[in-house]
Amino acid sequence: MSILVVGSIAYDSVSTPNRMAQESLGGSATFFSLAASYFAPVSVVGVVGEDFRKEDLRMLQEHGIDTGGLIRRPGRTFRWVGEYGHDMNEAHTLDTQLNVFADFQPKLAAEARQPAYLFLANIDPDLQQAVIGQLQSWPRMVAGDTMNFWIQGKPDALAKVIGEVGTLMINEGELRLLTRETNMVKAARLVLSQGPTMLVVKRGEYGAVCFTQDDVFATPAYPLETVVDPTGAGDTFAGGFMGYLAATNDLSIGNVRRAMIVGSVMASFNVEDFGPGRLQALTTTAIQDRYRDFWRLTYFDGTGDRPLPRRKD
Amino acid sequence: MSILVVGSIAYDSVSTPNRMAQESLGGSATFFSLAASYFAPVSVVGVVGEDFRKEDLRMLQEHGIDTGGLIRRPGRTFRWVGEYGHDMNEAHTLDTQLNVFADFQPKLAAEARQPAYLFLANIDPDLQQAVIGQLQSWPRMVAGDTMNFWIQGKPDALAKVIGEVGTLMINEGELRLLTRETNMVKAARLVLSQGPTMLVVKRGEYGAVCFTQDDVFATPAYPLETVVDPTGAGDTFAGGFMGYLAATNDLSIGNVRRAMIVGSVMASFNVEDFGPGRLQALTTTAIQDRYRDFWRLTYFDGTGDRPLPRRKD
Repeated sequence: MSILVVGSIAYDSVSTPNRMAQESLGGSATFFSLAASYFAPVSVVGVVGEDFRKEDLRMLQEHGIDTGGLIRRPGRTFRWVGEYGHDMNEAHTLDTQLNVFADFQPKLAAEARQPAYLFLANIDPDLQQAVIGQLQSWPRMVAGDTMNFWIQGKPDALAKVIGEVGTLMINEGELRLLTRETNMVKAARLVLSQGPTMLVVKRGEYGAVCFTQDDVFATPAYPLETVVDPTGAGDTFAGGFMGYLAATNDLSIGNVRRAMIVGSVMASFNVEDFGPGRLQALTTTAIQDRYRDFWRLTYFDGTGDRPLPRRKD
Repeated sequence: MSILVVGSIAYDSVSTPNRMAQESLGGSATFFSLAASYFAPVSVVGVVGEDFRKEDLRMLQEHGIDTGGLIRRPGRTFRWVGEYGHDMNEAHTLDTQLNVFADFQPKLAAEARQPAYLFLANIDPDLQQAVIGQLQSWPRMVAGDTMNFWIQGKPDALAKVIGEVGTLMINEGELRLLTRETNMVKAARLVLSQGPTMLVVKRGEYGAVCFTQDDVFATPAYPLETVVDPTGAGDTFAGGFMGYLAATNDLSIGNVRRAMIVGSVMASFNVEDFGPGRLQALTTTAIQDRYRDFWRLTYFDGTGDRPLPRRKD
């Protein structure tokens, strides 16, 4: 099945303690669609400026991404400037220039109004709602992301969107802010009482957790010796996760668990280079190998039924 | 096989945002030996004051713990007063009274000088070295813990101990401080070049990672709805880990991975109540059930060999 993603396209300038990169292709829709493109057909809806580079458009298309919904507007493409400290866990925003993104009004073409899988990346919840309003049939899966800015700035509009998406994918800090609850399990219960049937909590270098009413699945992140730039890791996770689900079109718990690993695999690649450097140059073999590496990283028992020893007195 | 643990015995007074507990039995040797006692025979070497409660001694003995090495000295037992904020990840020490622990000189009885498994809990590295010096034969496994206070205060003595223990078990912040390296994989390589053949990194609510020269194993922590008091979770982890290894007497990588889960299981129980409240009242069935819960939490593929779907263009 195919996926529709609505989100941002940006040029990111990122500094880390040792290196920096100017104007890498970025934005939530970029990372998501590249990651998903290895598994399933993806169409992207977004806006770019007149300065959007031809080679970036070509690169997306060479990954089979349908860029028909990528509108070019007079003005400059969204710019983000950020830096990371030594711990690489939190980006400090130095500058944001919305440019053409400021007036973004997502509009689905007639043929895009019945997507099987829909990802509403982190944009204004009013725009997320506007996308939902254009749907002609309800997708098999609708997943949404958000961020602190909207949690604090548009809580009511966001609550409405959360009431409609089946899957909410946010990071741990956002979950705390959204629910005002520091305990992750309690916070997850709250979210699952507000509409979503699935909550994916992204924990950066500590991995990810998936909650449904009856199931909890947790995976560590892949321990990497080289972490160059974590920008876009969450969107890359979402792209791998949803790409796998769309390709298999199987939303059973067992398959969702594997999708969590595929998301983790793709995110682990993404942080190994600036921007989409690593993500755009992956091979199926590299992806399959790291999936198996994840299995090796976390495997401990075939069945979980091993009887534990007891002390003999 | 049996385990010898050398560490502290304390009375802890702990405040959390909602509740507090006065003078719970605590100390690294207490948490370690209780956790290990469910699997293997444990002997404890430590010091207590005249005020050490009879019922606490009895409780340890009822768990089959050999308290022959628990020396009673004139004065008061070690006291620690601490508090936790909402995130429950870091204890803030409000008061420490070493009392009889200030003059602790661990002395192994003749029959304790050939332990099969030895755990050097977090005490002065000079004392850890003194324990090693009393050994008549080298144990099958020697594991050691330490803390920021010794990393900063006695780096040379600590380096000597680290050069002798086969397994170092420390938390993530301690690993960073010890190696001055923020990347966990690089930091682990450094430690493994300094003596230990195994490094266990404890990450609190994010789980634990085990590094050897050829293997990395990571597990998330069990997501708990009720976290009352994390004091002693790291020592409890070590007790479950080493208790399982001593009981099975199998140091293969596959068994070490299961030991990591048993450690995580025991730590997850420990945080559910103040002091050793939950830990001292466990049943074999509860432990076995949570081991299986861990398997359910992390299982995603029988073999790691599932071919991933590729996009069909």
